Amino acid sequence: MGMPLEVNTMIVTKGKENRQQENFFQLIKEGYRLYPMHVPLEVKRTKEGELSGTGQIHRLEWRDNSTIISYELVSLQSSN
Amino acid sequence: MGMPLEVNTMIVTKGKENRQQENFFQLIKEGYRLYPMHVPLEVKRTKEGELSGTGQIHRLEWRDNSTIISYELVSLQSSN
Amino acid sequence: MGMPLEVNTMIVTKGKENRQQENFFQLIKEGYRLYPMHVPLEVKRTKEGELSGTGQIHRLEWRDNSTIISYELVSLQSSN
Amino acid sequence: MGMPLEVNTMIVTKGKENRQQENFFQLIKEGYRLYPMHVPLEVKRTKEGELSGTGQIHRLEWRDNSTIISYELVSLQSSN
Repeated sequence: MGMPLEVNTMIVTKGKENRQQENFFQLIKEGYRLYPMHVPLEVKRTKEGELSGTGQIHRLEWRDNSTIISYELVSLQSSN
Repeated sequence: MGMPLEVNTMIVTKGKENRQQENFFQLIKEGYRLYPMHVPLEVKRTKEGELSGTGQIHRLEWRDNSTIISYELVSLQSSN
Repeated sequence: MGMPLEVNTMIVTKGKENRQQENFFQLIKEGYRLYPMHVPLEVKRTKEGELSGTGQIHRLEWRDNSTIISYELVSLQSSN
Repeated sequence: MGMPLEVNTMIVTKGKENRQQENFFQLIKEGYRLYPMHVPLEVKRTKEGELSGTGQIHRLEWRDNSTIISYELVSLQSSN
């Protein structure tokens, strides 16, 4: 009984995100995870890594013990 | 800030379920709802109505402020 | 990163509930668990055991990697 | 049926926090809210306001349609 779930407040890509188009990405994570939808979340490549930008999730899917999220990335200004 | 969510412990179809094949159904509910996955849940046509059977959700999707669940229905009395 | 959580739809006491008064009980469970509040939930001694009754949780606390719930038990068979 | 819940990724105090001791605060919020435990969260006075610091919640309680959180505030550098 009981369903394990992980509450996430940040998108950690580990470089596995797939660009769908322009700033829209899809990412598959292991297990069932709860991310807030339509809320700005920090996007990082690794948990302790630098901020890649801010993402807003507009679609989340649970199946086969995986979580698939689709999000729009708003890049930080790489102001050089 | 903050994402509204409704925790559901029962599948209430209101007759809007779509049969995908045999005992597999898909149902779209308004808003973002959290259902436990892969756990037997009561399936009813209305909240206060009679039990239609038991369902186990194997897929859940959030998007456009809707929740789409796919579940297998195990009917109660198949009386014959 | 991430907070592990277990979504529970049933109260499994394992005989560890403490009666506070009359039909009001308190139960400590390991880990952080999400139970729906103010909703009738099945109460069982063991996951696969017989139904003890129906419980409604009116208070839930998370701390020290434990979940403490307070609920009112509505017994099933009032045997007389 | 169904329990409304709000998933929060930030602590918004609206100046209503109560200092328990040193850097430990308690805050009562309306409704049932899910905050990640033991995870650094932004603390702000208002949703759109400036960052007050980072907080980690070590206790959360739901009752009477309220959420009570206890958290430790790690102030931003008060530079002087």
